[in-house]
Amino acid sequence: MKISHIEHIGIAVADLKASIKIYEEVFGLKCYKIEEVPGQKVRTAFFKVGDTKIELLESTDPEGPVGKFIEKKGEGLHHIAFAVEDIKEGIADAISQGAQMINQEPVKGADDMLVAFLHPKSTRGVLIEICEKEKQVM
Amino acid sequence: MKISHIEHIGIAVADLKASIKIYEEVFGLKCYKIEEVPGQKVRTAFFKVGDTKIELLESTDPEGPVGKFIEKKGEGLHHIAFAVEDIKEGIADAISQGAQMINQEPVKGADDMLVAFLHPKSTRGVLIEICEKEKQVM
Repeated sequence: MKISHIEHIGIAVADLKASIKIYEEVFGLKCYKIEEVPGQKVRTAFFKVGDTKIELLESTDPEGPVGKFIEKKGEGLHHIAFAVEDIKEGIADAISQGAQMINQEPVKGADDMLVAFLHPKSTRGVLIEICEKEKQVM
Repeated sequence: MKISHIEHIGIAVADLKASIKIYEEVFGLKCYKIEEVPGQKVRTAFFKVGDTKIELLESTDPEGPVGKFIEKKGEGLHHIAFAVEDIKEGIADAISQGAQMINQEPVKGADDMLVAFLHPKSTRGVLIEICEKEKQVM
């Protein structure tokens, strides 16, 4: 697959407001958007750092993936996302190399992205997403 | 502090060779350097993804920070590093905002960087490093 950059880093947080305050005050970053992603059961706060976004992920449901993550591991780094040119090609490449996908087909993520997660069993414990900016139909 | 980009993402791995194989074969990235950092008790493999490095960290000592991390949490995302213009100013800014530093003074990291870690207690569980490229003395 052709990866251009790290699109974002997802961080699991228990209290979105308290974490936004840290990234704004300690690091001088600016939260430019808060978006709820019902499909992932999270509320997300976005920061831009160079070409990469920091996405703080607050669970909206204890049974959602971020709620379960925090219950098991506590707050912290949750996943990284590689921007790829063509997500369908990326999924096919990963499968052809023996990796297991959580999403065999792209699903809609935050910020108008099409995303697919690899299973952390295939990446030695790191949750990695590949993503492609969704093309707007005129 | 003035952050320009995410300098690197550190990933704790138990088997450097096995993890290099995944990033090269599944994601098509290229490991361009392996470096031992005695101060951190790690062997590090570097990949470049856009402006950001992926640093795989294999512990060279079970009592080192990465060895202890893996024992407690398993392999996975370990820390993120923000590139700052001036690391001493960055440390002073963080302290003035009430954050606790692991390193009150910059220390030598991998890849000719001066680095300082914030205590994860100050960042709600996320290990964050700030770093500045070491200036070469002619």
